[in-house]
Amino acid sequence: MEKIVTQTLLYDFYGALLTDHQRKIYEDVVFGDLSLSEAAEDAGISRQGVHDILKRCTKAMEEYEEKLGLIAQHQSILRKTEEIGRLSEKARTADPERTEVLERISALAREIAEEV
Amino acid sequence: MEKIVTQTLLYDFYGALLTDHQRKIYEDVVFGDLSLSEAAEDAGISRQGVHDILKRCTKAMEEYEEKLGLIAQHQSILRKTEEIGRLSEKARTADPERTEVLERISALAREIAEEV
Repeated sequence: MEKIVTQTLLYDFYGALLTDHQRKIYEDVVFGDLSLSEAAEDAGISRQGVHDILKRCTKAMEEYEEKLGLIAQHQSILRKTEEIGRLSEKARTADPERTEVLERISALAREIAEEV
Repeated sequence: MEKIVTQTLLYDFYGALLTDHQRKIYEDVVFGDLSLSEAAEDAGISRQGVHDILKRCTKAMEEYEEKLGLIAQHQSILRKTEEIGRLSEKARTADPERTEVLERISALAREIAEEV
């Protein structure tokens, strides 16, 4: 399970940097639940070839994360946007104009969370 | 000027993905104000070699931006964190406890702006 989460996160952030061929195989095996042999047959390469490609993809994406740190950044910003949401709830008053401003703050925090 | 801004932005976001050799030459010419010939002499390669490396670096970083869009994301999130800052000023009341909450929201928005 832990492995799938990591593989999914890596792919979410860095899948765009893989080649089409790598992406197809990665998706087939990691998300499409094909066995290595089935993916190998699909791609017309050996089972060992599929295994090597997957290993290379994971290594490449781990290296991107080491250099760019987008997953770490995403998680840190998510914590902050959630806190902004909680705090803007807390700052509410009976004043409807102020409530509207605080709701706009919450909405902006949610938009940021979706962008990172 | 426009070109320098673009080159600086690209390098800020994707410089980590260049090789050490590419980074050295890019920094010498773009930030260190060496001429192509001076950078070439430093690196022990031809002036044309330096020219080609710079072109290749810029192209590679532009491709990363096309695929990952980090600069566009950065600018979009910056606009949102600035708006959160403005709105949390606007939502202030005389209540010191509420002011503290709103200041914490502003501080979180500034932290997010620094992280992206």
